[in-house]
Amino acid sequence: MDKDALVDYEYPDLDPLPSKIETETIPPCDPTADDMLYHICITAISMVIMLILAILARRTKVGKRQKGLPGLLSPVNFLDHTQHKGLAVAVFGVLLCKLWGLLISPNPLPFTTDSTNKQNWVILGVFYYPALYYPLLACGTLHNKVGYVLGSLLSWTHFGVLVWQKIDCPKTPLIHKHYSLFSSLPQIACLAFLSFQYPLLLFKGFKGAERTNATEDLSSSYYRDYVKTILYEKKSNKVSTSSTDKPKLPQRVTDAVRSYIYTPEEAFRFPLKLAISCVVSFITLYQMGLVLISAVVPTMQKARFGVDEDIANVLAGFQIILSPDRKEVVRIVVYYMWCVEVCYISAMTLSCLVNLVLLTRSMVLHRSNLKGLYRGDIYNVYNCQRSIRASRPALVCWMGYTSFTAAHICIGMIIQTLVFFLCLMVAVFLIIMPILHRQNLILFQIALNMWPFWLMILLAVVLQHITARFCFIKKTAGTRDLTNRGNLFLLTYLLFPVNVLIGVLLAIWRMIITALFNIVHMGRMDISLLNRNVEAFDPAYRCYAHYLKIEVSQSHPVMKAFCGILLQSLDQESKAAQKSRDAEEGIQLVQQEKKLHKVSSAKRARMHWQLLYTLVNNPSLVGTRKHFQLQTADNFLNGSLNRNSKQGSKKEAIPKEAEAAAAASN
Amino acid sequence: MDKDALVDYEYPDLDPLPSKIETETIPPCDPTADDMLYHICITAISMVIMLILAILARRTKVGKRQKGLPGLLSPVNFLDHTQHKGLAVAVFGVLLCKLWGLLISPNPLPFTTDSTNKQNWVILGVFYYPALYYPLLACGTLHNKVGYVLGSLLSWTHFGVLVWQKIDCPKTPLIHKHYSLFSSLPQIACLAFLSFQYPLLLFKGFKGAERTNATEDLSSSYYRDYVKTILYEKKSNKVSTSSTDKPKLPQRVTDAVRSYIYTPEEAFRFPLKLAISCVVSFITLYQMGLVLISAVVPTMQKARFGVDEDIANVLAGFQIILSPDRKEVVRIVVYYMWCVEVCYISAMTLSCLVNLVLLTRSMVLHRSNLKGLYRGDIYNVYNCQRSIRASRPALVCWMGYTSFTAAHICIGMIIQTLVFFLCLMVAVFLIIMPILHRQNLILFQIALNMWPFWLMILLAVVLQHITARFCFIKKTAGTRDLTNRGNLFLLTYLLFPVNVLIGVLLAIWRMIITALFNIVHMGRMDISLLNRNVEAFDPAYRCYAHYLKIEVSQSHPVMKAFCGILLQSLDQESKAAQKSRDAEEGIQLVQQEKKLHKVSSAKRARMHWQLLYTLVNNPSLVGTRKHFQLQTADNFLNGSLNRNSKQGSKKEAIPKEAEAAAAASN
Repeated sequence: MDKDALVDYEYPDLDPLPSKIETETIPPCDPTADDMLYHICITAISMVIMLILAILARRTKVGKRQKGLPGLLSPVNFLDHTQHKGLAVAVFGVLLCKLWGLLISPNPLPFTTDSTNKQNWVILGVFYYPALYYPLLACGTLHNKVGYVLGSLLSWTHFGVLVWQKIDCPKTPLIHKHYSLFSSLPQIACLAFLSFQYPLLLFKGFKGAERTNATEDLSSSYYRDYVKTILYEKKSNKVSTSSTDKPKLPQRVTDAVRSYIYTPEEAFRFPLKLAISCVVSFITLYQMGLVLISAVVPTMQKARFGVDEDIANVLAGFQIILSPDRKEVVRIVVYYMWCVEVCYISAMTLSCLVNLVLLTRSMVLHRSNLKGLYRGDIYNVYNCQRSIRASRPALVCWMGYTSFTAAHICIGMIIQTLVFFLCLMVAVFLIIMPILHRQNLILFQIALNMWPFWLMILLAVVLQHITARFCFIKKTAGTRDLTNRGNLFLLTYLLFPVNVLIGVLLAIWRMIITALFNIVHMGRMDISLLNRNVEAFDPAYRCYAHYLKIEVSQSHPVMKAFCGILLQSLDQESKAAQKSRDAEEGIQLVQQEKKLHKVSSAKRARMHWQLLYTLVNNPSLVGTRKHFQLQTADNFLNGSLNRNSKQGSKKEAIPKEAEAAAAASN
Repeated sequence: MDKDALVDYEYPDLDPLPSKIETETIPPCDPTADDMLYHICITAISMVIMLILAILARRTKVGKRQKGLPGLLSPVNFLDHTQHKGLAVAVFGVLLCKLWGLLISPNPLPFTTDSTNKQNWVILGVFYYPALYYPLLACGTLHNKVGYVLGSLLSWTHFGVLVWQKIDCPKTPLIHKHYSLFSSLPQIACLAFLSFQYPLLLFKGFKGAERTNATEDLSSSYYRDYVKTILYEKKSNKVSTSSTDKPKLPQRVTDAVRSYIYTPEEAFRFPLKLAISCVVSFITLYQMGLVLISAVVPTMQKARFGVDEDIANVLAGFQIILSPDRKEVVRIVVYYMWCVEVCYISAMTLSCLVNLVLLTRSMVLHRSNLKGLYRGDIYNVYNCQRSIRASRPALVCWMGYTSFTAAHICIGMIIQTLVFFLCLMVAVFLIIMPILHRQNLILFQIALNMWPFWLMILLAVVLQHITARFCFIKKTAGTRDLTNRGNLFLLTYLLFPVNVLIGVLLAIWRMIITALFNIVHMGRMDISLLNRNVEAFDPAYRCYAHYLKIEVSQSHPVMKAFCGILLQSLDQESKAAQKSRDAEEGIQLVQQEKKLHKVSSAKRARMHWQLLYTLVNNPSLVGTRKHFQLQTADNFLNGSLNRNSKQGSKKEAIPKEAEAAAAASN
């Protein structure tokens, strides 16, 4: 895609015999920062950093409310809407680029150049790279200045070495001289983002701007804002549904276009896993496009520039004589090859654009599906009733969802490029070229020779539509009904054979439209490519449906908002209790206790009702409560109630009254 | 498919060098009953018969309740459930076979042998044949002995001449020597049915067993039986829905199998158009299968028998040396060709079987769709709310539905045979043959060399399922929830690259399954091949949906049952009035009139309520009533109220009271 690639695409008619292009030989390039040495060092450094982080985690565990070592071992909370998503997204981006390099390059791992056992090295690499980039995620977990410093250093090292290597060796013999460089651009971007983000976090930490519990999902105001917004929305919705008029055509077109453009909404944030999926899809799109272009186009160009007068002999061997003049033959062949190239590049571009548009469309659909499920609108999303709760297949699908998205985009793009290429070739060589050159008008001649047939079809269709409109349908008093039934039946009988021929055209059209639809939507997991009754047989859609189940059952914003409020009130209570214990003198104490008692009874009453309401609407939570099984209370609410488990006894006094109230209200 | 075709399929290893088969030359055969002469005669006869029928119709019009000439011009009531369907189905079958012959044969019309303008003759034929077979339908319309005699004569002539021609010339040079014979079998069957049916009707007419209004749709007891059955059903349904247990696996398998087998139900009859569609589909299936077999297999066999030792030289020219021994080469080539033949025949058979199964499945679905729409269950059938009423596109789709079914089966079978053939070829030559001969095990070697990869994939999948089951999902008190979230997130991160590879396999599986599903269901119009949100873009399904609209809005059995009751009571009334007018003496008259008055006021009260109920539930009928537009009453209820239009004034006195009652009840 550099400048002389563009020049290549000028129609080569001025110089019908291009001089043989000298094939640029790219010497094997060893960057100053040797890859093997670098990887050995960075692995060692990463291990050291992990050790330091582990010691830090063990130390800070007692004093603060961090999760310590277990937290270090799972730095990403995928079920989180409010977490700063940048770090996780960037690390996943880097990982994807590495996986891509692993599959494409002949030496998957830097530790060896043994390319006979490539497969085994790939398998090793598949597990090595996630471990290698793990510290980049883990450094942000502790919310600790030391962690941020280490993170900054590590990301700078990764970023610096990668950029250094690319500057040292911009050209590699792999696929295309610039392929390696372009392919590492997303990786560089992700690492640059990390290199910028960690110092920023450190800076915020120094300024104290970052609250210590910034990642405490439940204390974020997002969930409460969400609840507020849906409460507001309801009113405006009611107004709009009261006007049941059918929207007009321009309105419907606008709506259709808008449904393909993702506009962020204040009151909705994507779950982290969906955000990662979108970025991963985008990177896959870029990488796949790059491979498709750089693997095929240079070869085509080389072939095109390699055409010389021998081609006339070769063609004559197959009894194809394009022209008596050899130069003319070369010119024609070069022109055809140029057309093929243009078709290929157009097909690839079209496929990229289609996938980009569908990516934004998917985001719109993800949002509406999630919001629908939050509302409990299960039937509309799944087209059947399902129980939204965790299950084994759902969990497996949830784990793989992000990866599957990337894979589907990949396969989808390959198929799309192939099909679009074939379609464009047919269009160019059978339709456009004949029109331009006014020769080989085979298709047109066939179509033209069949004019009586087309005329008959057209007349039959028009006849049916006109008679249906004016003879057989009668409008009376705003209703429509059949009339002239006898003639309708007669016409139906007489047109039976013609309609069979029309039906053949319809069937071909059906075939084209369904094949095209499925090929275009191959990369999307959020819709099923099958008929609505067998949707679940489409593995991709099944996976998406399961993914949504876990996402909704585990991170329902309203539930989280409620949990947040619950935690907050407990928090205030414990602070108040602390205060009262600190001030142990005279009248002050008595007054304080009275006040506290007043406050806490109000709080308790509120909590009763909040709990009752939650349990009534989420019967699945009942099983996780203390009087069912004592130790299960620890896992309640994403472990965030852990620290409140000592106050649990107070909380557990509630349900009996609450349940009595529920029984009474029934 | 005769005996030596079967012998051909024995594996030809005993005689590796079959002597060149002498190509049987079929002399052009002129049947004694010359086609051109026959057609000229039969056309003339048909015209004469139509004239006789017209005169008869004009005569009988006044005296009886037949529809006269207009009825003669539309002998088929497609919106009828109760009509004896045999005549119409048989004529459509004959017509379809003729259309088939028209497209296949080089001389589409018998009047000319000019094959240069074939296209124009085809177009002419498309309109000629429906007209030619029209009298066969029309003869049954008058319910008149003369009509039946003429019908018998005409069908006997058609049948006799066709059989005579086929006996005269069983072999024709077209496609395959026996093609013409086999192809005309359905036509012979249909004509035989007609030849049998008309005399039967005549016989019944003589015995007086056939009521004069046998075809009067509304007076049939079917609709009342239908209403009774659904009223009974409701009770039993209520019992079954009260047990909301999920069915067990064997039960579900049985249900799935049963949904593919059509079992007639006493309380449901197909509309005539659907019955015709089913028979037409079946004939298309037969004809298409016949063409696919007879066009390809004999050529393949000829090629196989034509293989001699020269083939070794030809192959050597392409640098393919199968064996140093020339006889061995011939043996191998013949064997391979035999395999290809077997693959092709298997593919064709498979396609036929698939389409047969899907045909019965379609019938089950048609019934459940129709019953659903009768119940008003629009959302379940269409997946959206639609207004069920006549409209221009709906009417056009309704007119073409039967023909489109045939065309879709045609195209579906071609594609299925092609795809199945390719799949079988791949399976045979890459999988089965290598296993049998233990050579060229390329696929297996590749798969075997990739064992570490497969092992990794398998382990990753198993690991995810096992951990999901035992580590991350916790069952407490009957509910399931996530546990060990930290480890879940860690595993999700670490398995990201492996899952991408799993995703690629999933995507390929998705591609295969969706393509296969769509190809298999290509011939079915009653399901959409697209995603549920864009179902209407599938032209075939759109047509089916529209077809159902017309069918349900115009021939709802409950509406018809009501109309039947209404007519019957009017009928009784008029008979009673007639009686009273005949007996015009003394006391008898007074008594009679009192009785009549009593009866008619009860009847009138009943009618009030029947009419009111109908109008409330079918607001679209309001527009067709007299006080909206006087002359529209004539078209009310499929013209069957025509004869009652004089009594209309009596009927029209009702609505004001009825509407007042309706207003009061609101």
